Amino acid sequence: MNSFSTGDLVRLGIVGFGRLGRRHAENLATRVSGAHLVAACSPLADERRAARDALGIGRLYETYDAMLADPEVDAVFLVTPTSLHADQIIAALRAGKHVFCEKPLSLELDACERVVAEAKQHPRLKAMIGFVRRFDPSYRDAFEKIRAGRIGKPFMVRSQTCDKNDPDGFFVRFAPTSGGIFLDCSVHDIDLARWLLGNPKPVRAYATGTIALHPGLAESNDVDNGVGVVEFEGGKLAVFYASRTMAHGHDTSTEVIGTAGALLVGRNPRMNRVEIADAHGLSNECTPTFYERFADAFVREAQVFVDAVRGDEPVPLTLHDALEATRIGIALRESQRSGQAVTFESASALV
Amino acid sequence: MNSFSTGDLVRLGIVGFGRLGRRHAENLATRVSGAHLVAACSPLADERRAARDALGIGRLYETYDAMLADPEVDAVFLVTPTSLHADQIIAALRAGKHVFCEKPLSLELDACERVVAEAKQHPRLKAMIGFVRRFDPSYRDAFEKIRAGRIGKPFMVRSQTCDKNDPDGFFVRFAPTSGGIFLDCSVHDIDLARWLLGNPKPVRAYATGTIALHPGLAESNDVDNGVGVVEFEGGKLAVFYASRTMAHGHDTSTEVIGTAGALLVGRNPRMNRVEIADAHGLSNECTPTFYERFADAFVREAQVFVDAVRGDEPVPLTLHDALEATRIGIALRESQRSGQAVTFESASALV
Amino acid sequence: MNSFSTGDLVRLGIVGFGRLGRRHAENLATRVSGAHLVAACSPLADERRAARDALGIGRLYETYDAMLADPEVDAVFLVTPTSLHADQIIAALRAGKHVFCEKPLSLELDACERVVAEAKQHPRLKAMIGFVRRFDPSYRDAFEKIRAGRIGKPFMVRSQTCDKNDPDGFFVRFAPTSGGIFLDCSVHDIDLARWLLGNPKPVRAYATGTIALHPGLAESNDVDNGVGVVEFEGGKLAVFYASRTMAHGHDTSTEVIGTAGALLVGRNPRMNRVEIADAHGLSNECTPTFYERFADAFVREAQVFVDAVRGDEPVPLTLHDALEATRIGIALRESQRSGQAVTFESASALV
Amino acid sequence: MNSFSTGDLVRLGIVGFGRLGRRHAENLATRVSGAHLVAACSPLADERRAARDALGIGRLYETYDAMLADPEVDAVFLVTPTSLHADQIIAALRAGKHVFCEKPLSLELDACERVVAEAKQHPRLKAMIGFVRRFDPSYRDAFEKIRAGRIGKPFMVRSQTCDKNDPDGFFVRFAPTSGGIFLDCSVHDIDLARWLLGNPKPVRAYATGTIALHPGLAESNDVDNGVGVVEFEGGKLAVFYASRTMAHGHDTSTEVIGTAGALLVGRNPRMNRVEIADAHGLSNECTPTFYERFADAFVREAQVFVDAVRGDEPVPLTLHDALEATRIGIALRESQRSGQAVTFESASALV
Repeated sequence: MNSFSTGDLVRLGIVGFGRLGRRHAENLATRVSGAHLVAACSPLADERRAARDALGIGRLYETYDAMLADPEVDAVFLVTPTSLHADQIIAALRAGKHVFCEKPLSLELDACERVVAEAKQHPRLKAMIGFVRRFDPSYRDAFEKIRAGRIGKPFMVRSQTCDKNDPDGFFVRFAPTSGGIFLDCSVHDIDLARWLLGNPKPVRAYATGTIALHPGLAESNDVDNGVGVVEFEGGKLAVFYASRTMAHGHDTSTEVIGTAGALLVGRNPRMNRVEIADAHGLSNECTPTFYERFADAFVREAQVFVDAVRGDEPVPLTLHDALEATRIGIALRESQRSGQAVTFESASALV
Repeated sequence: MNSFSTGDLVRLGIVGFGRLGRRHAENLATRVSGAHLVAACSPLADERRAARDALGIGRLYETYDAMLADPEVDAVFLVTPTSLHADQIIAALRAGKHVFCEKPLSLELDACERVVAEAKQHPRLKAMIGFVRRFDPSYRDAFEKIRAGRIGKPFMVRSQTCDKNDPDGFFVRFAPTSGGIFLDCSVHDIDLARWLLGNPKPVRAYATGTIALHPGLAESNDVDNGVGVVEFEGGKLAVFYASRTMAHGHDTSTEVIGTAGALLVGRNPRMNRVEIADAHGLSNECTPTFYERFADAFVREAQVFVDAVRGDEPVPLTLHDALEATRIGIALRESQRSGQAVTFESASALV
Repeated sequence: MNSFSTGDLVRLGIVGFGRLGRRHAENLATRVSGAHLVAACSPLADERRAARDALGIGRLYETYDAMLADPEVDAVFLVTPTSLHADQIIAALRAGKHVFCEKPLSLELDACERVVAEAKQHPRLKAMIGFVRRFDPSYRDAFEKIRAGRIGKPFMVRSQTCDKNDPDGFFVRFAPTSGGIFLDCSVHDIDLARWLLGNPKPVRAYATGTIALHPGLAESNDVDNGVGVVEFEGGKLAVFYASRTMAHGHDTSTEVIGTAGALLVGRNPRMNRVEIADAHGLSNECTPTFYERFADAFVREAQVFVDAVRGDEPVPLTLHDALEATRIGIALRESQRSGQAVTFESASALV
Repeated sequence: MNSFSTGDLVRLGIVGFGRLGRRHAENLATRVSGAHLVAACSPLADERRAARDALGIGRLYETYDAMLADPEVDAVFLVTPTSLHADQIIAALRAGKHVFCEKPLSLELDACERVVAEAKQHPRLKAMIGFVRRFDPSYRDAFEKIRAGRIGKPFMVRSQTCDKNDPDGFFVRFAPTSGGIFLDCSVHDIDLARWLLGNPKPVRAYATGTIALHPGLAESNDVDNGVGVVEFEGGKLAVFYASRTMAHGHDTSTEVIGTAGALLVGRNPRMNRVEIADAHGLSNECTPTFYERFADAFVREAQVFVDAVRGDEPVPLTLHDALEATRIGIALRESQRSGQAVTFESASALV
């Protein structure tokens, strides 16, 4: 089926050409070796036109099914609304396409499970969810150092995803379908915690939160600042913080604490290597959004996917990982709403 | 009774002359204006001898009652085991002495309440609990900036008290009487959170923890790494972390997040202003214990107490503050043991 | 001649395929939009083979003249020994090729002048010297902030280029032809100082240095640690430091001081966003060589060159800039050797 | 004469009660063990009154001679104009008083030499010049690390003394008598360089500077930003920077580079341990003046002096050290004025 010989390029179709979709497309078009971005799919004429004009993409589709029918497309790159992810992945696999999908896999556990089951039917097709932080050079370095024993046995992760406040409150309008702050933001930290702690099974979760600036979130039972605690088997712990209201920029950081040391990734969300000394003291600017912080990681993530397809090697981040991140995110949301800790048996029962 | 005229020194008696007691005594003897350390009390002959030889203290007492009977002592400075605090404070007040007492006030809520009630009977006597961090110049600066509106409305505190691992495990032997990690360590962070958030009432608490290095703690239902979440009325939140197992030193830091900015105190527990660049990269040493970190604050704390006594002004940190910190610490301990969130009505019922 | 229409790629030939040449080639092959790396030239069969095998380059040349004769090559990219630069640039221009050349332009002022004169004969051809730091995002940000007036009027630059010590002393063997530490290393800082201070004319230079670890340099009148001071007209100053003996890594940093503030670029030569807290304190690793520090800048530099060729726009870094950097570097070397300050009239006389 | 038995306090008289004098006096009165501040001398009635009212000093003198005649004064603490230092030290020694004098010893080499010669006549009397930075805990830590071999053999010091710009230009009026920026500011860095490099003999000096903000300095041949380079025997180097025009605060830092590493003291002139994250990014405030930066060091410096007097032990910082710092400072000033490097033989000849 899709067996690539040396030198073959992976012919990719991007699905969704919004802000993030366009960035993925630019990366695939110009910065990912072995990738050939040949097709783009969007229901919006403007987005199709942009794909053609800005990147010279020749095969433009209005519907996803039409793109899947194109034999010149080896793999699809989904940058679509979360509610579509599960069905689109399943359809891609059934059409014989490799598939990369932006996180999260799905907001529903049963949808996650359907995708995992389908993928088992297509062992030669690659399916990968884009938890981009795993591909950031600093997170990668931390992972390698942990594996090399630099901090002894890691037992705790503290991780945060904090966005700069958007006074327009875009995410308030997005709240009814976002899955809530834990599934939308903390899902990154959940994935990191599992990865950095060696994929332990969760035992119990607790979460709470507050609305600091965006009262409109109350309608969706959501918060703009949330904290969560997850206990895993083997005495491992994770503490999460997610915020939509930072004044200084996008501030993502993670700390891994072990028996012989700790690793800290991204404590100062510095924009670059510049500091200014002036009447206000000594300062540095901060990354405004996740994209400036993780621009390199988006390229590497795509490169890893393309390399896995070309080399017929396993993707480093499985659908099972994505399912587990969703499971924990749902438990945190339930706890935030109920005010009580959720144990993972009952969490399964709830969903 | 104790009305000081300008120039009068406060004649102090130190009670307890262990490691920390000796440091308090040195401060009172040499660095606190208006203080005259005249007496020391210890059941141990060695400690009394040390008080005399090192600091030239003339009035040495084997029993606390004997010191309280000394009319030349205006105020006592208690650096004694926590289990003695409540009764010793009450006795001091009844003897007409001002009293400074190391934190925490007590591990039991009813003992705290007895002290508060007794103090009400002695309105002219000062009684202050030593939550030393409030007197650290950096915490003080953060407090002033918050009061000046620099971060908008503060709604969240994240605060940690993390000690360097003591391979001898002194605190394991201390565990049966320490009150557990939340009452022993996090009580500082609890006090800071209340202070920096404007003393809101607690609503609910959740905590958990793990034993990373010291299995002996299991006998006392204690942990060597604990995390806690406290919700306050008005949508305010606090997240605490306490550890006994840090590899790098004593690492105390606090973050206060507001609607227009955040303040970070002590993110790098740097020992001083020195960095070294060598084959290991760029590094700084860390404060080994709380004392190196808060040496200045211990002096200021004592100065504030002495000034309040001399000027007959209220102490900035009331017994009520200390009682509230104990109340929250107990709730966290209950939650850690039960695995369930504790609401503050039931917390009251539990104790 | 070389007029590019939209969509045309610039067909490039790389000259020199050593360590840095290979990196430039990889960038041109995979990360620079509008570039098509079609040819490689090296007298070494191994390097030609590497160019073919690793990057699939089809047109391989043993001699530079042969490559220049290839009509399918629009531009050459010179990563060759400095002693060849001037003649190779002139030959490229005469062959009608655009030319990018690694820094420095030349170690001799008259050679620089010959190149400048030749380029004037070919106004449509682009010729650019690779002072890579100007293309680093942090230096670029500093430049923009200065232009925007953030530090008032800039009057002083302090800049350093410090390499990690190479115990094998490669650069000792390289010393007889390197031009000395000021022309080899500080030339970057000289270029930055001119750029960031608004290209003032130099008035006087003083330099000195020491041999800390590599006595073999004495034969070449060179040092492994050098400091230089340059005064410019208008009361502007620059202070340079160059070292071959750093223990911690490649440490390049620059400070620009103005009348209303200062900008600091790269004060901590941190490898990435990871810190480790362990028994040695809190540390970060450092960039081991200039390449890890400036990997992005090498891509952008090539992109700027290719864009200028395609768009027929001026290159931002002129041959005159490169000549001026050489002039100042020579004056510093003369001062280091003579022990006396060199004024720029006499400097001209000396060379 | 002045032989102190255990427990005897050193009875001190402060001379000069301006801003810095008052701070020294407060330290001696309240923070220095073994010190008893008994007398104050000032020609100004206001200052004498302040000494009495703020610190309860009983013995007030209008003239220095009168204070020297007081047998109840064991030691004098000179915080007077530099032009008086040499004669006042000599007079103190002749009156049998120990003497502490603020830096610099003198602006004239022959005055320094007279003081050194006089002190030799009074071997039991202590005379110490206040190069306060040697007593800063961070500089002390760096010194100990160097002594312990942490950076191999130190061969270079880069050190700066940069003051916050004073728009009132106090120092412009002070310029005619300050000795110029190198003798007034860099003299600290010169002393540090000698201390940290093991007191090598100077060989050659070069300096230059610019007037960035205060044109009035031109009348005194002075600059508001100066840089200097000093070579010592054994291939050791020092680079100095002094400024009067910093926007962000008082910024003193020092780097010591050795064959196996480097030590950096005070790279970020942070005010305390607080950072603020807000719309401007992440910032910290800076120490506004030298006093906030070195408040602790001023106490330790006085303590060391008092301890040396009480214990009849040598002071760690000799008059010879102060003379050498003046010698180098004069050479830098000469070079700045002449535009040529000064060798130390000719420097001696010049003064």
